[in-house]
Amino acid sequence: MEFLDGILKKETTEWEELLGEDFAGKEAVLEGAVHSIRRMGDVAFVILRRREGLFQTVYEHGKVNLPISEIREAMTLRVRGVVLEEERAPHGRELRIREIQILSAPAEPLPLAIDKWKLDTSLEAKLNFRPVALRNIQERSRFKIQEGLVRAFRDFLYEQGFTEIHTPKIGARGAEGGANMFRLSYFHRPAVLAQSPQFYKQMMVGVFDRVFETGPVFRAEKHNTKRHLNEYTSLDFEMGYIDSFHEIMAMETGYLQYAMELLKKDYQKELDILKVTLPDTSRIPVVRFDRAKELVSEKYKRPIRNPYDLEPEEESLIGQYFKEEYDADFVFVTHYPSKKRPFYAMDDPENEKFTLSFDLLFHGLEITTGGQRIHDYGMLKKKLADRGMEEEGMEQYLDTFKHGMPPHGGLGIGLERLTMQLLGEENVREACLFPRDMTRLEP
Amino acid sequence: MEFLDGILKKETTEWEELLGEDFAGKEAVLEGAVHSIRRMGDVAFVILRRREGLFQTVYEHGKVNLPISEIREAMTLRVRGVVLEEERAPHGRELRIREIQILSAPAEPLPLAIDKWKLDTSLEAKLNFRPVALRNIQERSRFKIQEGLVRAFRDFLYEQGFTEIHTPKIGARGAEGGANMFRLSYFHRPAVLAQSPQFYKQMMVGVFDRVFETGPVFRAEKHNTKRHLNEYTSLDFEMGYIDSFHEIMAMETGYLQYAMELLKKDYQKELDILKVTLPDTSRIPVVRFDRAKELVSEKYKRPIRNPYDLEPEEESLIGQYFKEEYDADFVFVTHYPSKKRPFYAMDDPENEKFTLSFDLLFHGLEITTGGQRIHDYGMLKKKLADRGMEEEGMEQYLDTFKHGMPPHGGLGIGLERLTMQLLGEENVREACLFPRDMTRLEP
Repeated sequence: MEFLDGILKKETTEWEELLGEDFAGKEAVLEGAVHSIRRMGDVAFVILRRREGLFQTVYEHGKVNLPISEIREAMTLRVRGVVLEEERAPHGRELRIREIQILSAPAEPLPLAIDKWKLDTSLEAKLNFRPVALRNIQERSRFKIQEGLVRAFRDFLYEQGFTEIHTPKIGARGAEGGANMFRLSYFHRPAVLAQSPQFYKQMMVGVFDRVFETGPVFRAEKHNTKRHLNEYTSLDFEMGYIDSFHEIMAMETGYLQYAMELLKKDYQKELDILKVTLPDTSRIPVVRFDRAKELVSEKYKRPIRNPYDLEPEEESLIGQYFKEEYDADFVFVTHYPSKKRPFYAMDDPENEKFTLSFDLLFHGLEITTGGQRIHDYGMLKKKLADRGMEEEGMEQYLDTFKHGMPPHGGLGIGLERLTMQLLGEENVREACLFPRDMTRLEP
Repeated sequence: MEFLDGILKKETTEWEELLGEDFAGKEAVLEGAVHSIRRMGDVAFVILRRREGLFQTVYEHGKVNLPISEIREAMTLRVRGVVLEEERAPHGRELRIREIQILSAPAEPLPLAIDKWKLDTSLEAKLNFRPVALRNIQERSRFKIQEGLVRAFRDFLYEQGFTEIHTPKIGARGAEGGANMFRLSYFHRPAVLAQSPQFYKQMMVGVFDRVFETGPVFRAEKHNTKRHLNEYTSLDFEMGYIDSFHEIMAMETGYLQYAMELLKKDYQKELDILKVTLPDTSRIPVVRFDRAKELVSEKYKRPIRNPYDLEPEEESLIGQYFKEEYDADFVFVTHYPSKKRPFYAMDDPENEKFTLSFDLLFHGLEITTGGQRIHDYGMLKKKLADRGMEEEGMEQYLDTFKHGMPPHGGLGIGLERLTMQLLGEENVREACLFPRDMTRLEP
């Protein structure tokens, strides 16, 4: 009988070993995709792409088992050879090839020049050829940084006593209501895709006190802008036993600080590749919604058209204002008007036209919405009634409050927007592996 | 201007502090939900439930600002008092209450006796009152262990050089094909919910070499069994540059070993609450599909009805066989028949009726399906044609192979099934916070 007792040791050389001290002069076996080939007369540089980065291998005519004419871009190879110091190579090392084994070969040449440092093509082309375009080193680096942002979210919240949950994406009813829900038939019953894990994470506060989820959410919004996706990854948390919604903003501040530290520690390579300057998260200003509108109106001579709404241009100007006045990359805007927030938002007892809620703007773009929620059953029923909303499909959600819930609140961070702003991208689609928008359902 | 510079320090006492050395005799402030009240004449024990566990507080008549009659189960409280050693209390400590502040109160009594050690009610009732039922300590502990399984998956794979990805759940076409897809209208175009991230994780192997995703998958299967959910969390990985599909099984073995260590380290409390005995992951037997059928047929005198299929009873007997013969909790069953595997599975060059694939059985239940995939464009096109399948909706997937892909493979683990088997549950719904089955769309 055969048994497996753990991961298999491979013959190939580990990346750390390859770049480690004392490895020069030694034999190595390296696998990777042919990123580019530069022919230079007697030799050819065959640059291999691996998950860790690019590595230069050198083909010397007459010294290898295969003619160079057989090696093509986008093949995957296993090469054996000797590693030598070489100042001009990317990592100060190169591998002189003695033997090549072709692992796989492409059927056609690549449609994009992915070996260029900057992939010089339209967003449209990049999205149409997504699996190939992402092989470009800059393109893929974005998603390593995105990984770091999610990883930091989880690791920080574990440390803070949060429990990770997995809640259903198909449900009888959406949390936000309204028209922007994708509808489907679920075994002949009408169902919708979750706009957010809102109801579920609130219900789970009664169980675990503090919970988070990182998962997809779905919005059938008919917006075709640079800021909207119809499916995106939401970083959600919800926490009980709060004295004020400021605790939620403080927790998010803690997360952002943790994330920037993790990026510096584990993702410096990608930060360098993309020349990212990390934002200042050491202190984040907090301003009321109505005050923010006034400040921007005064400074930029812009009349306030609607005192109960923030236009995208106003958001952008609030970002500009706090950058100019306080050198701040982020700003918490608090006390959004009640009529602009969902029914479960807690109204401000001092002025019920406003809520104990906030958005976080990052360089002038909303990346988070959060706030304190109503935890009292009677208050929640009244708010629903005041809004003329049906309780149907929300019975168990409401029952949770009937059976006691601590004061609580939480937030949702749009992962792609956070990534986009961190990288200084103009279009949120650049920060999503496979974007879904009104016209794009593939790849 | 107000600024936030990190998480806010609370007045409440940290759990570690409360149970730490030298804390007896000190004053503490504790928040929690009233899990139960036991009235004992002059005193009452008010057990508070917090995320970390239960803590005994003692109400002494005449010494507190509120009458005990005002305190009810499912209220949430902030209590202030002095912590004293008390052998008979759960953690050897109790808090003598001096002051109570009621944070919130339920509108109605609880529908279930959640303070019982074992929640003594039907699965149906537990699911109907899910947000309340999960407040039971045993019930919620399952999902802490589930958290540990997911956390271990990610942490182990990060260490092994995998990149986390987030792929769309709405698409033009399902990876597995067939009838078991949920269909929806996506801005007037037909769309489906992802049955698995299969196509996307394969495409991303060309970018990152090794990728993983933990997210929901959707199966419109008309199965109403104890083992099926229509939406579940899939732990998926895919890895390039493999020499054999044994590397995938070995990686999974490594994951399981890592997970058991993490559970022992960080989730011992919950393992004790549920009296879980961790399975042996030190060595996992590997047996061919056809051989497994023979072994079971011989030992249990069961005729082989269909040589190309495993019945649930056979799976269960294979588990029993390897438990009895090798004291094994897991067994890898390899070389499944080609006709039972999707088109992208790599056939065994030695016998094309079988594939280089495997299932992992845990105590006789399939918890993983995986294997090597076809990486050659021509071979993939031929397999599609041989099966009479349309290429429509798969263009970008196929293009990925046209443009070169390394030999690769991967797997998907059903998180709820893994949890269910680890906990020794009879029904997979016990291992899902909010199950979705043919009849259940709420809560």
